Amino acid sequence: MTRAYVHGYDPRENCRLQDQAKTLVDLLHSDTGYPAGSRVLEAGCGVGAQTVTLARNSPGAHIISVDISEQSVAQAEQSARAAGLSHVRFQQADIFNLPFDPQSFDHVFVCFVLEHLKEPGVALRALKKVVRPGGTVTVIEGDHGSAYFYPDSAAARAAIRCQVDLQARAGGNALIGRSLYPLLVTAGFQDVRVSPRMVYVDAGRPELADGFTKKTFTAMIEGVRESAIAHSLMAPELFDQGIQDLVRTTEADGTFCYTFFKAFGTVV
Amino acid sequence: MTRAYVHGYDPRENCRLQDQAKTLVDLLHSDTGYPAGSRVLEAGCGVGAQTVTLARNSPGAHIISVDISEQSVAQAEQSARAAGLSHVRFQQADIFNLPFDPQSFDHVFVCFVLEHLKEPGVALRALKKVVRPGGTVTVIEGDHGSAYFYPDSAAARAAIRCQVDLQARAGGNALIGRSLYPLLVTAGFQDVRVSPRMVYVDAGRPELADGFTKKTFTAMIEGVRESAIAHSLMAPELFDQGIQDLVRTTEADGTFCYTFFKAFGTVV
Repeated sequence: MTRAYVHGYDPRENCRLQDQAKTLVDLLHSDTGYPAGSRVLEAGCGVGAQTVTLARNSPGAHIISVDISEQSVAQAEQSARAAGLSHVRFQQADIFNLPFDPQSFDHVFVCFVLEHLKEPGVALRALKKVVRPGGTVTVIEGDHGSAYFYPDSAAARAAIRCQVDLQARAGGNALIGRSLYPLLVTAGFQDVRVSPRMVYVDAGRPELADGFTKKTFTAMIEGVRESAIAHSLMAPELFDQGIQDLVRTTEADGTFCYTFFKAFGTVV
Repeated sequence: MTRAYVHGYDPRENCRLQDQAKTLVDLLHSDTGYPAGSRVLEAGCGVGAQTVTLARNSPGAHIISVDISEQSVAQAEQSARAAGLSHVRFQQADIFNLPFDPQSFDHVFVCFVLEHLKEPGVALRALKKVVRPGGTVTVIEGDHGSAYFYPDSAAARAAIRCQVDLQARAGGNALIGRSLYPLLVTAGFQDVRVSPRMVYVDAGRPELADGFTKKTFTAMIEGVRESAIAHSLMAPELFDQGIQDLVRTTEADGTFCYTFFKAFGTVV
């Protein structure tokens, strides 16, 4: 059959990024590439989960990746070397007390970091100081309150809430995605723009059902099981039911939705 | 300043549909246009809220718009005439008992209809019968469980839940968006594809703050105030607080998220 539409394009192709992203990496990173020669700071690289992608998408940039944990930095460096990347330098550093001159970077990249900080706004101000006027910040964060699914399940929703509560007790914010716009504006960035990146999973997208719903999101919620029980946030049986119900959404008639937020700001 | 990125495009431009939609009409309808000469059935046109857009985007198609309410059809016809549309015919008809020959349409379009039906799957099967092999169905529905916002508010969430509960009591499903994929597959459509259409609103998108958050979503929730109170679902003061908190999300530091689902299926 043919599908000839008046506008000359298939309606199914219209929102490429969300609809066709085969992996989370595509969805979050494919549109971040920094020019050759630019100086880029990756703040809070952890064990380098995002560093390899960042570096591959910006082959000519000079990247410095920092993390507060000496051990994580060492692991990140090892991953980068294993991936054959030579244009990334690693260094232990505290975002709140950066060992860099003011305006010494063209761009800052921050991914899955602010959600863990008690004072994300203070961190953004500290990062802003090391960016030259005209430079940019790019921030990517999730938002666990954006998760919903079919079949719906009160147990699954409660298990997710355990993760949100535990992260809040630790001083973080698992719902930070929705507040990136005011965070960047308040920190003094200009021309702030937020681009939501929704992950939608159904049986027509088996890579995402396995790679995202099961192995990323559900695995992360499952990771707080012992803490949730220890803090009496949820009965073990109900928590396990919640996990089972999340996995249930990857069956042939299930769907799963989650949204990441990618924010851009300019330094003036 | 310049923003030169390696990939040669501005990262801010990447998800055009979601990021740049100025209005709900763009976001939901801009990619639906049927070829000249094709026979299109709009099922459940109501008072014609979507008919004018549908018809404008398919100027050469032969459109028949039906609704179960004689009165609504009359209103829809009036709107279409006022808009100068001559290629739409209106007719009172019941989706579950359509007065059309089998396979007499090339395409069926259904927008904000299934959410009100007790048996949306039966409706889809009835619609499938009047589409020729190789023809398509397009379905657009919302999902009120996809709404979240900043600042978060328990009162606002409870007010939204009132609407969801009341719609469920009336036999409908305000959370139907997330289940379009299994609904279309179960009804026997092939090559089913669902495209989420997320509305993201912050102070950088004032048209949407006014046109969507306030005048569309909040107004709709406010519309169930009397029923919610009559059914003792929520105290009046708390409900009003919830509405106030939804409006609060349109202030300079607020954000609001909602997702519509657009589904496509083919008849074989």
